[in-house]
Amino acid sequence: MKYCSDCSIEMHWRIPDDDDRPRYVCDNCNTIHYENPKMVVGAIPVVDGKILLCRRAIEPCHGKWTLPAGYLENGETIEQGARRETREEACAILEDMEPYSLLNLAFINQVYFLYRARLAEPGYKAGSESLEVRLFPPEEIPWDGLAFAVIRRVLTLYCQDLLNNHFPFRVVDIGSHNAWK
Amino acid sequence: MKYCSDCSIEMHWRIPDDDDRPRYVCDNCNTIHYENPKMVVGAIPVVDGKILLCRRAIEPCHGKWTLPAGYLENGETIEQGARRETREEACAILEDMEPYSLLNLAFINQVYFLYRARLAEPGYKAGSESLEVRLFPPEEIPWDGLAFAVIRRVLTLYCQDLLNNHFPFRVVDIGSHNAWK
Repeated sequence: MKYCSDCSIEMHWRIPDDDDRPRYVCDNCNTIHYENPKMVVGAIPVVDGKILLCRRAIEPCHGKWTLPAGYLENGETIEQGARRETREEACAILEDMEPYSLLNLAFINQVYFLYRARLAEPGYKAGSESLEVRLFPPEEIPWDGLAFAVIRRVLTLYCQDLLNNHFPFRVVDIGSHNAWK
Repeated sequence: MKYCSDCSIEMHWRIPDDDDRPRYVCDNCNTIHYENPKMVVGAIPVVDGKILLCRRAIEPCHGKWTLPAGYLENGETIEQGARRETREEACAILEDMEPYSLLNLAFINQVYFLYRARLAEPGYKAGSESLEVRLFPPEEIPWDGLAFAVIRRVLTLYCQDLLNNHFPFRVVDIGSHNAWK
């Protein structure tokens, strides 16, 4: 971010009056361009006890397995966003959606919100951003082939909760030290 | 948003290749400027059964009552954001924070996340964005003087949950028809 999107003049990175942190400020038209975290919404789709994972056809982590999830769009609710991402990445329809977890990735300015959901019939297949979509029993989750730490964390919690058949809503912080492993 | 913040050239509002909705696109440097919903984080601070509300010193809804809440900043977790907003607006410290509700305001591209929390001693007072901060027993909540529909909705849910002494995490959609009432 270098130029003001309102007037095209070069901006400055400084603390505005009555503020406590630096922002992109336009001294020409006096606009402050705030930057805020983005929400990533998705789901753990389950059918017959098996979890649907998508193998990524795009970077980062091309070829790795992940849950269907992506950026929330303007005009959407988080449930609509999770349904859309699952449709796009796995050509699959969700039902019985239950809020499951919120994960803070403050070091990359992201907040994940994931639902538990049932995969509605009849099917699923790879969407344009996936190489492959497959159902995994919990004991066959490809732990070493998962795309992101946030996915490993939420699948770990889910497998623990499965043992108790109790799925409390949780807020979890993901640290930067294990970010892209 | 009119000019590209990367190269200062005028942008176009069109559907990019391989996309399904219009974005701000720069045909000079080929940057797509995505816009996404913002998160608002806050709390229902409670002490001795009374709820802390702030009377707004800023627009919109100057003079109306609200819960401490505001935009999540980059680099923050949602809990840190809710604590910061409560400190800024009510000079108050939260403890025993429990996730309480997520409210979709898709029509203004906002997602609210609110905690239940206890107000830690010793005190509270109006911050720079508040005219006044006060504790209200549930039966004295100023329903006609609340700032936003989302605040009225979450306080209504909270008062209902109080009767059952059970506070399940909920995801709620707020429609545009009652947005600013």
